Amino acid sequence: MALPILRIIGFILGIFLITLAVAMTIPVLTVLALNRTDQIPEFMWSSLITLGCGLLLVLLPRPHHVHLRPRDMYLLTTLSWLIVCCFAALPMVLIQEISHADAFFETMSGITTTGASVLTGLDQASPGLLIWRSLLHWLGGIGFIGMAVAVLPLLRVGGMRLFQTESSDWSEKVMPRTHMVAKYILYIYVFFTLSATFAFYWAGMSIFDAINHAMSAVSTGGFSTSDTSMAHFPEQTHWVAMLFMILGSLPFTLYVATLRGNYSALFKDEQVRGFLIILALISAVLSLWYWLHTQDVSPADAVRIATFNVISIVSTTGFAMGDYTLWGDFAIMLFFYLTFMGGCSGSTSGGLKIFRFQVAYALLRANLRQLIHPRAVIRQHYNGHPLDEDIVRSILTFSFFFTITIAVLALCLAFIGLDFITALTGAATAVCNVGPGLGSIIGPAGNFAPLPDSAKYLLGIGMLLGRLEIITVLVLLTRTFWKH
Amino acid sequence: MALPILRIIGFILGIFLITLAVAMTIPVLTVLALNRTDQIPEFMWSSLITLGCGLLLVLLPRPHHVHLRPRDMYLLTTLSWLIVCCFAALPMVLIQEISHADAFFETMSGITTTGASVLTGLDQASPGLLIWRSLLHWLGGIGFIGMAVAVLPLLRVGGMRLFQTESSDWSEKVMPRTHMVAKYILYIYVFFTLSATFAFYWAGMSIFDAINHAMSAVSTGGFSTSDTSMAHFPEQTHWVAMLFMILGSLPFTLYVATLRGNYSALFKDEQVRGFLIILALISAVLSLWYWLHTQDVSPADAVRIATFNVISIVSTTGFAMGDYTLWGDFAIMLFFYLTFMGGCSGSTSGGLKIFRFQVAYALLRANLRQLIHPRAVIRQHYNGHPLDEDIVRSILTFSFFFTITIAVLALCLAFIGLDFITALTGAATAVCNVGPGLGSIIGPAGNFAPLPDSAKYLLGIGMLLGRLEIITVLVLLTRTFWKH
Repeated sequence: MALPILRIIGFILGIFLITLAVAMTIPVLTVLALNRTDQIPEFMWSSLITLGCGLLLVLLPRPHHVHLRPRDMYLLTTLSWLIVCCFAALPMVLIQEISHADAFFETMSGITTTGASVLTGLDQASPGLLIWRSLLHWLGGIGFIGMAVAVLPLLRVGGMRLFQTESSDWSEKVMPRTHMVAKYILYIYVFFTLSATFAFYWAGMSIFDAINHAMSAVSTGGFSTSDTSMAHFPEQTHWVAMLFMILGSLPFTLYVATLRGNYSALFKDEQVRGFLIILALISAVLSLWYWLHTQDVSPADAVRIATFNVISIVSTTGFAMGDYTLWGDFAIMLFFYLTFMGGCSGSTSGGLKIFRFQVAYALLRANLRQLIHPRAVIRQHYNGHPLDEDIVRSILTFSFFFTITIAVLALCLAFIGLDFITALTGAATAVCNVGPGLGSIIGPAGNFAPLPDSAKYLLGIGMLLGRLEIITVLVLLTRTFWKH
Repeated sequence: MALPILRIIGFILGIFLITLAVAMTIPVLTVLALNRTDQIPEFMWSSLITLGCGLLLVLLPRPHHVHLRPRDMYLLTTLSWLIVCCFAALPMVLIQEISHADAFFETMSGITTTGASVLTGLDQASPGLLIWRSLLHWLGGIGFIGMAVAVLPLLRVGGMRLFQTESSDWSEKVMPRTHMVAKYILYIYVFFTLSATFAFYWAGMSIFDAINHAMSAVSTGGFSTSDTSMAHFPEQTHWVAMLFMILGSLPFTLYVATLRGNYSALFKDEQVRGFLIILALISAVLSLWYWLHTQDVSPADAVRIATFNVISIVSTTGFAMGDYTLWGDFAIMLFFYLTFMGGCSGSTSGGLKIFRFQVAYALLRANLRQLIHPRAVIRQHYNGHPLDEDIVRSILTFSFFFTITIAVLALCLAFIGLDFITALTGAATAVCNVGPGLGSIIGPAGNFAPLPDSAKYLLGIGMLLGRLEIITVLVLLTRTFWKH
C-alpha cells in the first residue's frame, strides 16, 4: 500500500471523524434542552478528541491527482467502520459505569444497526446516552446504504450489480451519477425519520421517545429507550414501527427512482414483491400459531404481536415485543430461520437478504429442469437480468463465507463456555445484524450483559463482519491484496 | 411415464426383492446355528412374501428393446429404495414387540446406513434381529456405492463426474465398463467385510459380534449389538473399528484403480488426502481438548476415545463410545459441525462430503483473487478437473437443497413439539445419515425411542432424502418430470 494512497484514505477518514464529532454535540444539546446536566463532559471531551483527530487527518498535506483503485476501497471501507466505531465508543468509554467491553459492544451494535444491548435500566438512563445510541443507529444506517449503493458495486460485493442496469436510457432517467443518488437517498432517509418521529408522537410517545424510535426504526437498528422495548409503548406505536421498519428494509435506490418519475419502480421490483409476500405469509402463519397456542389472546392482538415480531426480525431491526420463545418450539425454530433472512439489498437491513434466496430458487428450478432435459439450453433471469456465471459464483461465495463466519464465531463462543443455543444464535444474530438471539440469556426478553467480555468483543467483530458483507474484510486478509 | 418403462422398472425392482428375500434367510440360519429358535417364523414369512412379490415382478411379461432414459432412472432409484425399505421392514413389523413406526425407522436407519436406533435391550436381543440390522447396513452400503458409481453420474447428481475422466487412455486402463467396476467393488466390499470380521474376532469379540460390527463398520452404518455400542468391547476393537470406518469412507473406485495397477491412485487423490488431513487435525484438537477438560483420563485414552468419536461422526458411521456431549460446549459445537461433513464421494458415507468443501474453498480463493484483480482470467482446478460453471451450479444447488431439507425437517419436528436442539440436530443427523444427534434424548448416549411416531416417520424420510442426494427425489416432484 503506497503512502499517497494512505494519505487520501486518511483524508476521507478525517471527514468522517469531523462529522462524528459534530454528531456528538447532539446528545449535549438534548440534555441541555431537557434541563439536565448529566454526562455533558463525557460527550464534550469525546467530541473535542474526535474533532482534533479528524482535523489532523484532513489538514495533513496530501498528494493531488491520486485516484483510489477498487482495491484501495476495500481498505478504506473496512478502516472507516473500524475507526469510526472506536471514536464513537469514546462517550461510553468515558462514562464510569460502562466497562470497555460493554462500550465496544454497544457502540458496534449501534453503528452496525444490530441493536443487541448490554445496557439495562434504560428507562432511567440519561437522555444523552439514549439519544447517542439512537444516533449511532441512524448514522450507521445511512452509512451502510451509502456503502451498499456507492462502494460495494464497484467492489463486486453485495449483489447490487443485479439491480443496476447497463441501459443508458434508464440510467439517465432514474439512476444519475453516484453523488446525485447519494444526495437523494439522504433526503429520503431524513424525510422518513421526520415522518416516523411525527407518527410515533401522534401515536402516543413523548417527543423524546418518538425521535429515538424513529431513528432506530428507519435504520432497522433496534435500540429502544425502555428495557421492555416497544412493549412499553401504546398499541398504535407498534403499527407505526412496523411501517417504518418495512420502509427501512426496501431498496433506497428505488425510492430515488420513484422520486425521479419512475412511479412503478417499487412495485415492479421482484425483490420488493418477494419481501412483502414473504412477510405477509410468515406473519399469517405465526399469527395463527400464536393465537392457537396462547389461551388468553384476542385474534387482533395475536396478529399485531406476531406480525410485529416477524417484521422486527426479518427487517433485522430487533425491537422486542414480549418473548416469542414462550410461543412453543415451532415458533422458536421459525424465528431462528428468520434471523438469517434479512430485507432487501440496498436498504439498511442485514442478513442474507431476499434477493439471494430468490436467485438461488431460480437457479435451482433451472437446474432441476436441466437434469430432466440434459441437452436443453436453460437460462434464467431475475429482475430482468440474466443469471450468468459471475452471479452464481458470487452467491455461492457469499453464502459459504456467511455460513463459515457464523460457524467459526459460534465455535469461538462455545470455546469461551457459552452453551450451544446461546453460542449458535448469538453468532447468527450478530453476523446478520438482527439483535436478539434465543435461549434464556440473549433471547428477546434477555440482555447480552451477562456474557463474558471476550464474548462481547467477538460478537462485536461478528457484527462488523456481517455489516461489511464479510468479503470486503476477507479480501484484506489474502496475501494477494498486500503484494506490490 | 409409459407402461413399457414401468414394466422394466418393475423387473429390476423384482430382482432387488428376490435378493432381499434371500438375505432374509441369513437371520434364520444364524438363529439355527446358535441353537436357538426365536423369531424364525417372522423371517421365514417375510422372506416368502418378498420372494413372491419379487418373482411376480420378474415373471410378468415385459417388452424387449426398451431402454431406460436418464429421467427414468430418477424414478427407478427412488422407487427401489422406498420399496426395498418397505419389504425389508417386514420382519420387524411381524415381531410383536416392535411398533410399525419403530420398524419403519429402524429399517430406514439400517438401509440408509444411518445407524440411529429406537431399539433398546440389544445385549439380550435375538441374534436374528441383530444380524438383520447389520445386514440392512451392509446391503444399503453396497447399494449406495453402486448407485453413486453407476447411476448418479448419469443423472449428473452427486458430484462423481468430478472424479471421472474423459481421457480414454486412463479410462481403459483403470476404469472399465460399469458392470466390471461394479463387480470389482463388490469383491472389495466383501474382502473388507471378511477382513474386518477376522480383525474384530482377533481383537477380542465373539465371532457373532465380529460379523455384526464388520458389516456395520465397512458400510459406515453404526448399529451395534450392545446398548453401549463400541464402549462395550475391548480397546483393541476400537482401533479395528476406526480402520474400517475410514476404509468405508474412501472412494471405492480408487480401490478398483489400485487393484488394476494404478497403485498411487489413492494417495494422489485430493479428496482422500483432504479427508485424512482433516480427520488427523480435528482428532488432535479434540484429543487435546478432551484430555485438558477431563480429570481422570490418560493421554492415550484421550487420543483413542476422541479419535474414535471423530472418525465415527465424520465417516457418518455413528458408533458411540461414551458421551461426548459431556466434554463441554466447544466439543458439542464441533461435533455438531462434524455431522455435516461426511466422507468421500463414491464411498458408503453420507453428509455433504469432503470434495464439496474442497471445491468451494478453491472457488472462494479464486473469487477473492478475482475481486482484487477484476480483469485477470482466473480458473481453478480440482483433482485435475477445471471447475466450470456446471460444477459451480451443482455445488450451489446441492448445498442449498441440503440446507433447505434439514431446515424444513427441523421445522416439522419442532411443529410436532421436539425442542430446538433435538429438532435441529435430529434433522441434521438423519439427512447426513450419521446416527446420533445432540441433547438429552437423541445424543450419543441416548436413543430415538422416546420420540413420537410422527417424528420417527419424518426422520426416516429425511434419511432416505439424504441417502438419495436429495436432488434425485426432488426431480420427481417437478411438473416438468411428469410432462409427456
